[in-house]
Amino acid sequence: MPYIELEPHLPGITGLLEYRKDTAQPIRELTQFLLRGPSSLSQGERELIAAVVSSGNGCRFCTTAHTAAANLLLGEKDTTSQVFAGIATAPVSDKMKALLTIASRVRVSGKQVTEEDIAAAKSEGATDIEIHDTVLIAALFCLYNRYVDGLNTVTPDDSGYYENLADRIVNHGYTRLPGGYDHLKNKIPS
Amino acid sequence: MPYIELEPHLPGITGLLEYRKDTAQPIRELTQFLLRGPSSLSQGERELIAAVVSSGNGCRFCTTAHTAAANLLLGEKDTTSQVFAGIATAPVSDKMKALLTIASRVRVSGKQVTEEDIAAAKSEGATDIEIHDTVLIAALFCLYNRYVDGLNTVTPDDSGYYENLADRIVNHGYTRLPGGYDHLKNKIPS
Repeated sequence: MPYIELEPHLPGITGLLEYRKDTAQPIRELTQFLLRGPSSLSQGERELIAAVVSSGNGCRFCTTAHTAAANLLLGEKDTTSQVFAGIATAPVSDKMKALLTIASRVRVSGKQVTEEDIAAAKSEGATDIEIHDTVLIAALFCLYNRYVDGLNTVTPDDSGYYENLADRIVNHGYTRLPGGYDHLKNKIPS
Repeated sequence: MPYIELEPHLPGITGLLEYRKDTAQPIRELTQFLLRGPSSLSQGERELIAAVVSSGNGCRFCTTAHTAAANLLLGEKDTTSQVFAGIATAPVSDKMKALLTIASRVRVSGKQVTEEDIAAAKSEGATDIEIHDTVLIAALFCLYNRYVDGLNTVTPDDSGYYENLADRIVNHGYTRLPGGYDHLKNKIPS
């Protein structure tokens, strides 16, 4: 049961984004720029950063949603599950391993990121903007995870809900659609 | 020394907001809405939440900047220093004590906020929107603190720098001014 009165048919972040639309708008835009804007990191790689940070923070709604989005973008489910099992042995590039390591440190604290972490990423070809975006995506999901869990929003159990949500954010992005989340209304488990 | 190439005369968050202006714009807007928009919490109270979260995260740049902003808005420096010494005994209202407690929990994890924390805030008269905004301000400063420290931005030692920055964010808000931070250029210690 959420700590504030939210639309009962809108679980997780969706109810919060409809609760206060003026603050939701820049949150949506920031996410759209970072996760869907032009970048040398693929959308799947960026969703992977979001999923890893959300998982580390134990935010089940965000983890499930962004894992589903990453899976949809990557076209398979192995990478996410292997990344959760351990970044070092996951089937991602050495550059992504270095960036996911930086994201995992940012999740705990910005101060945890070391010169060695940055040097490792740069030696694998990571650019300044890729490092910047990795840090900011990790920081943004530290915001999301706290927003979603700090207000005790509802976390659906049905995996179908997250597949519909992933389809929405992969195919329509993070900007608000006319009608908000009305298109998900009948797809949300009661 | 920052981990990516930033304008050398722009320490802390200021260099990051000029580094990638498209992502900076929604971050600025979100902060403006939350900390300067219409609210039943005063601007000083909202800066106090930002300062307490930044202090808990050990982000010296954000703590010093938002403490200076809170001091300027409150017209004295006692409240911030007493809040840092302990929320329970600080000279703020019982409602603010409950909200600062919630913010401190959100800082660690959204999951740390308990039903009892929320009931305590509501029994002191906190409204849903005040609780919402407290959680979102705390979450936003968890983003800022990680962004600023995760990229190892410069933290000036000179208290005069933060007083100028506080004057800027109190009297001009968080939106970008023409020329970025050029007006602070000569005020930044070399």
